[in-house]
Amino acid sequence: MNRTYRRVVAVMGGSICTPHQAEMARAVGRLLAERGAVVICGGMTGVMEAVADGARSAGGLTIGILPGASAQESPPNPHIEVALFTGLREGRNYLIASACEGAIAIGGGYGTLSEIALALRMGKPIVLVDTWEFHLRGETIEVPTATTAEEAVETLWQMMEGRR
Amino acid sequence: MNRTYRRVVAVMGGSICTPHQAEMARAVGRLLAERGAVVICGGMTGVMEAVADGARSAGGLTIGILPGASAQESPPNPHIEVALFTGLREGRNYLIASACEGAIAIGGGYGTLSEIALALRMGKPIVLVDTWEFHLRGETIEVPTATTAEEAVETLWQMMEGRR
Amino acid sequence: MNRTYRRVVAVMGGSICTPHQAEMARAVGRLLAERGAVVICGGMTGVMEAVADGARSAGGLTIGILPGASAQESPPNPHIEVALFTGLREGRNYLIASACEGAIAIGGGYGTLSEIALALRMGKPIVLVDTWEFHLRGETIEVPTATTAEEAVETLWQMMEGRR
Amino acid sequence: MNRTYRRVVAVMGGSICTPHQAEMARAVGRLLAERGAVVICGGMTGVMEAVADGARSAGGLTIGILPGASAQESPPNPHIEVALFTGLREGRNYLIASACEGAIAIGGGYGTLSEIALALRMGKPIVLVDTWEFHLRGETIEVPTATTAEEAVETLWQMMEGRR
Repeated sequence: MNRTYRRVVAVMGGSICTPHQAEMARAVGRLLAERGAVVICGGMTGVMEAVADGARSAGGLTIGILPGASAQESPPNPHIEVALFTGLREGRNYLIASACEGAIAIGGGYGTLSEIALALRMGKPIVLVDTWEFHLRGETIEVPTATTAEEAVETLWQMMEGRR
Repeated sequence: MNRTYRRVVAVMGGSICTPHQAEMARAVGRLLAERGAVVICGGMTGVMEAVADGARSAGGLTIGILPGASAQESPPNPHIEVALFTGLREGRNYLIASACEGAIAIGGGYGTLSEIALALRMGKPIVLVDTWEFHLRGETIEVPTATTAEEAVETLWQMMEGRR
Repeated sequence: MNRTYRRVVAVMGGSICTPHQAEMARAVGRLLAERGAVVICGGMTGVMEAVADGARSAGGLTIGILPGASAQESPPNPHIEVALFTGLREGRNYLIASACEGAIAIGGGYGTLSEIALALRMGKPIVLVDTWEFHLRGETIEVPTATTAEEAVETLWQMMEGRR
Repeated sequence: MNRTYRRVVAVMGGSICTPHQAEMARAVGRLLAERGAVVICGGMTGVMEAVADGARSAGGLTIGILPGASAQESPPNPHIEVALFTGLREGRNYLIASACEGAIAIGGGYGTLSEIALALRMGKPIVLVDTWEFHLRGETIEVPTATTAEEAVETLWQMMEGRR
């Protein structure tokens, strides 16, 4: 396919995160931007802010898919270049999973878990970093994980390339 | 609150399920209907069909929140009395979590996991039955579980009553 | 088609309406309920309240597709039997248009205009009663209108039957 | 407000349009890009393609909010730089109205009418160009119109500035 539009990668993660998760998110954002991907996220604080910071610092484009209908309701973090106010609240989690070509999830929160599950439900490539573990009794769920930003981005990249 | 509308309970579960899960779903549907709750679900096969079957058999009202825009796209199971075709695909998972006062999740699938996570994110009472287990490293996540239909419905009922 | 689920008709209309529009909505609700249709609407005041009142008075089932995530945010009118809180705000207008088999629009407001347009966009049968007129320069737009509740319901019924 | 994110303007319009509407859309896209606005649209053909073409030709950023869940379902036009596949079908019309700070509507179609109505419902600044006329009996609806691209963009700009 001779695609004319840019690759869009979602980085999912909570509005509260550990320093290590923020550091990982920042590095992931930078690496994604260096590879030319557009980074979408929920646009708020925590992992969302760190990944946007990293992507912008490398000259990347960052798009925030915000839950509120305005900046008053859901202020974008200062590293979001394009803020799309959806007014859909947690319904915007679906949108993030749907709009991306692939995703990296970092850290916790039920919102992040819902995004991971929706991405998997849609068959999107996803890599998990220091986030939820989940399983059905007696079944092994095989979702790729990574322990470094480089590994996360490289793994995701190969998964996305493999399905083009 | 002098509420004029009926209690709405969501039963979440996959389109494929084990005989045991179907049996549980059928019993949960029947018990919810006997308590006067409206049962909403994804409207399709598996757990969704079994719970609707149980609820209808006890004279309950069953509403299916379908992913497709028509019956051709997403045929409702024969026990759905009101089929709402959303055209939102997996976005309808958000809707099920948002529209209910409380939820019971039975069995597996990533769609079910997303619904559980969304309900938890919104602070909705939820009881888990033979479904996903999930945790963050080193953290204990306390979501009520049940092993019988009676226990699931009674536990959920108490949680819903506790917050009115 | 041997359909197992009930016919769902949307009645669209503003939260503020004239006494005449309320009277029309009440009569439309009653007639729809008498024909066995489930009535869905936005669940709030004005036309939405009047149509629900009419439908309930005739023993019909009324479902409100509310914009807010809770009764605190968007209180359902007292004639709504099943309140589905979407949290989607005006996005719920799309849902009403998508979920119905056919629609009747009564009275004004931009929300109503959006619902009419969405229903027409999806090819749904719709009848207009004392509501918006719209046209493109030089083009005639032919959407059925009615001046009485009986005419509105009968016209819609024939349109819906014609496409089954 | 010391806003850190870019101004987002929606251009609404049908997938089929006249040569004059396409010319207008192209000029509007170019002018919006020259003023630094990000242009969002439905991402498909007709007005959506022309406005994206104009914006890109002036170095602007173009974002397509697509109805389908993939490029197979809803191929973006070649001037869309960032394609967000929503899978929400016509529900994406709501999203376009919600996500923009202001809008310009050009040409016809019920989808466009729904977007105009939703933007007005949300109180968004909007300018109409060679598109729907609508009114309630006996009431005058005052929505700004324009006959040239320059007038449309300048009028919208003033409306947006007036409310910051």
